[in-house]
Amino acid sequence: MWMIDMNNNSKREHVKVEYKIKVFDIGAGLPIIVLNETEAKQRDLFVGDRVEMEYKGKTTSAIVDTSPSMVKEGEVGVFIEIVDALKCMPGDRVVITPLGKPASVDYIRRKLDGNELHASEIEEIVKDLMANKLSEAELAVFVAGVYARGLNAEETVSLTNAIMQSGDTLDLGVSPVVDKHCAGGVAGNRTTMVVVPILAAAGAYMPKTSSRAITSAAGTADTMETLCNVSFTSDEIRDIVLKTHGCIVWGGGAHLAPADDKLIRIRYPFRLDPRGMLLASIMAKKKAVGSQFLVIDLPIGRGTKFEDPSKAKELAKDFIDIGNRLNIKTQVFLTDGSDPIGYGVGPALECKDVFEVLQGAGPQDLFNKSCLLAGSLLEAAAIAPKGSGYEMAVGIIKSGKAFQKLREIVEAQGGSRNLSVDDLPIGKYKAEIYAEMDGRVDHISNSKIARIARAAGAPKVKGAGCVLKCEHGDRIRKGEVIIEIYSDSEAKLDYALKVAQEVNPVEFQKIVLGEYNKNNF
Amino acid sequence: MWMIDMNNNSKREHVKVEYKIKVFDIGAGLPIIVLNETEAKQRDLFVGDRVEMEYKGKTTSAIVDTSPSMVKEGEVGVFIEIVDALKCMPGDRVVITPLGKPASVDYIRRKLDGNELHASEIEEIVKDLMANKLSEAELAVFVAGVYARGLNAEETVSLTNAIMQSGDTLDLGVSPVVDKHCAGGVAGNRTTMVVVPILAAAGAYMPKTSSRAITSAAGTADTMETLCNVSFTSDEIRDIVLKTHGCIVWGGGAHLAPADDKLIRIRYPFRLDPRGMLLASIMAKKKAVGSQFLVIDLPIGRGTKFEDPSKAKELAKDFIDIGNRLNIKTQVFLTDGSDPIGYGVGPALECKDVFEVLQGAGPQDLFNKSCLLAGSLLEAAAIAPKGSGYEMAVGIIKSGKAFQKLREIVEAQGGSRNLSVDDLPIGKYKAEIYAEMDGRVDHISNSKIARIARAAGAPKVKGAGCVLKCEHGDRIRKGEVIIEIYSDSEAKLDYALKVAQEVNPVEFQKIVLGEYNKNNF
Repeated sequence: MWMIDMNNNSKREHVKVEYKIKVFDIGAGLPIIVLNETEAKQRDLFVGDRVEMEYKGKTTSAIVDTSPSMVKEGEVGVFIEIVDALKCMPGDRVVITPLGKPASVDYIRRKLDGNELHASEIEEIVKDLMANKLSEAELAVFVAGVYARGLNAEETVSLTNAIMQSGDTLDLGVSPVVDKHCAGGVAGNRTTMVVVPILAAAGAYMPKTSSRAITSAAGTADTMETLCNVSFTSDEIRDIVLKTHGCIVWGGGAHLAPADDKLIRIRYPFRLDPRGMLLASIMAKKKAVGSQFLVIDLPIGRGTKFEDPSKAKELAKDFIDIGNRLNIKTQVFLTDGSDPIGYGVGPALECKDVFEVLQGAGPQDLFNKSCLLAGSLLEAAAIAPKGSGYEMAVGIIKSGKAFQKLREIVEAQGGSRNLSVDDLPIGKYKAEIYAEMDGRVDHISNSKIARIARAAGAPKVKGAGCVLKCEHGDRIRKGEVIIEIYSDSEAKLDYALKVAQEVNPVEFQKIVLGEYNKNNF
Repeated sequence: MWMIDMNNNSKREHVKVEYKIKVFDIGAGLPIIVLNETEAKQRDLFVGDRVEMEYKGKTTSAIVDTSPSMVKEGEVGVFIEIVDALKCMPGDRVVITPLGKPASVDYIRRKLDGNELHASEIEEIVKDLMANKLSEAELAVFVAGVYARGLNAEETVSLTNAIMQSGDTLDLGVSPVVDKHCAGGVAGNRTTMVVVPILAAAGAYMPKTSSRAITSAAGTADTMETLCNVSFTSDEIRDIVLKTHGCIVWGGGAHLAPADDKLIRIRYPFRLDPRGMLLASIMAKKKAVGSQFLVIDLPIGRGTKFEDPSKAKELAKDFIDIGNRLNIKTQVFLTDGSDPIGYGVGPALECKDVFEVLQGAGPQDLFNKSCLLAGSLLEAAAIAPKGSGYEMAVGIIKSGKAFQKLREIVEAQGGSRNLSVDDLPIGKYKAEIYAEMDGRVDHISNSKIARIARAAGAPKVKGAGCVLKCEHGDRIRKGEVIIEIYSDSEAKLDYALKVAQEVNPVEFQKIVLGEYNKNNF
């Protein structure tokens, strides 16, 4: 049963031991094996240790977990991941050899100790992350280390490059390639679907990847999906962009910067957004598609990620610095994100706004903000002279070329060419929320509107969501409609109404902000 | 399917949803449930989120994991932990309600942010740790946060108290209660089994809990187990100590400071020993048994945890400070830990040394060190006048009372009363290692000796291990026996011999440390 590999000169003897396979017919997410606790200790194997598993000439690496009861001595419990890798069956005998910890665990610890990591060390961490060689706990320590100790500009560039290299890269071989990014959190902020057609119509190339909603009512990818497919390989994205000058696809569908998705999964439970990781995450996706000019929209104000504008300014500075080091000319706008943009909140309802804006009408705020962002890219890419980008963007919309371009892109992404507002699958069940008093609208909460829209079914139900019938500053009379809710089922509509009643998304201006008399001091 | 609990006034609506149980017939270690990935997103539930599960009036809390394939929409995958808690069957319908994150996750993050934690916050973290409410990743971030930001003395005391309160406490109602601790890593350093009987024979109470080996050849608990049972409840420990004045039991067997075992499991993969956690870990166990006087043995030197004596000095200072705050009068000895203590390495072989020392013979280093530690406790507890503790300890051994006391303790722990050296189950297969040259012994590696002893079967095989036939400074002739190896099987003995040949545990003094001539500069 015991064999020593005497040819191995490393300090640790490599003892190979045979185990009988016991299959747990589920996935574990990571290549985990379960050994009997007592026996594992006896063999110096502990939770988190790495081993190599060998079966009929095939090998795979795995992470050790132990249990006092799930497996007997001499047995190894394996999940689907290992069965797939080794093509083994219950009762088969595999040989297990202890491996050292990957060097990346040392690098993670070096970061936690406050050291600067070399590019090669960061690369190794991301490589092992992609190869599922690091446990959740080890990755959590990596995120915690970056959070507590920070990444300097060089480390951030290294992390960006490592994340970018974790997947495909798009080499369009054309110029200028432009891109935009928005930090998110503002309901209805669908500028991408206006900016991309403007830039593409103006002759730039805009291979735009977008995200799906996590807690919002719709991500740009969810909204675009109302019109056409959004999941493409990087080769398909290349073809679409070379043909139409633009695309609006789901970033998670292509194999672009996939390490980022894994890091986000780790960061999520703690809401930890270490700045270096945030920067690298965004810039890696831009670098992976070959962007040369980038405009970033950082919404600030009540309810956004940046209630404190000074933090947004610092981040803006970092974006420009890191962009510079990556040869991406970057411009950042801090925008007012306290209230939703446009009328519709939910995939199809947002498409309606986009269609109307591209036809020169629709909500003014979405129109203006889109032209501002598009204008800055037109100037950066030297398509518009300095100071005339905004006007050029407006002109491209008014000429009808932008709407025409969106239809071309939709068609290239497998949608139908002549979609109009009437084709949008707006939910057929509708409810209205009325003002309960006279007053002036002081604030509409992005997150509360998103919760109502989600309760109605968004983003999965494309036609579900809210339409805002009022905006910040409007004077409203009791009984007027302030919000419409759409859904595909009465049950969901009822539920959304209950959520709306509970969360109360529209705040009216108050005159009296507190009442005091001698009795309550 | 959707129900809102409108009576709940918290900000998050508590949506209850019914799911069909799918049972995975294995343990997960934590109360984890698996939801369909798409559906979970739709309901704002993400990996790491907490939910309450309700079935026939029983409720339990669980942590969400998601999978695209393991469960279908409307299904919830549960492991043995949840089945045990709810007594549910496959196909049963349970109601799942989202819960907020436990507040302890915020406290963990506050530590990572560099804040000082209040006693109540540390208590909450340890409480949630014990209730399995924190994921491995969250606990890893806690350890990383304590490591990166440190704990001040007050926080360390809070953590000590919280760990102590995580289990039973022993209230003996007698005095003086004495204790000792050794930082470990020195092979054969079995002073506890000498010190406890001396102190108990002198009238002090010594409720000693010890650990099992992790990477060494034997922990004190493994060694004592050669003679008798070492797993007792805290009530049983109380009875044994009140009857015999002492015990030597396995700390992991009693429900004393159990939170510590969980923290060690998290710390292990990274070899992270944040000082505050190390201090709290040790002191909590002492506090839990009501210790008043404590002596700590910190081995320093080559191959120990403290190659740098200045770090050991700092730790000694902290031990005394924290001891003071906890009303445990603490004294620390930095001892030479470069080479093994005694002759035997492995449970039964170490017992042999202990028996011989208690009969006034055996290895001098074990005899002297034990009397030094015992003497300091005799003086601290005012049993011996200042300056005469060592002499008193020697006297108690020479009088035969200490050996008599060990036999009493062994009997109280279920062993046989009149055990002698001949009764020890020394392995019947023996091999010898010979010196390959003349020379003076310069160093014997603790970790290499431990590896050989483990290869021979220790600590599981009680009679397996090594006997050192030489020590630091001895002049040896080629062909003399320097190590004996014992085991219960020829195969293990062969394996241990191969390990011994590979690791070469005994270093001889060298005269020439390098050879240079004009050709190799």
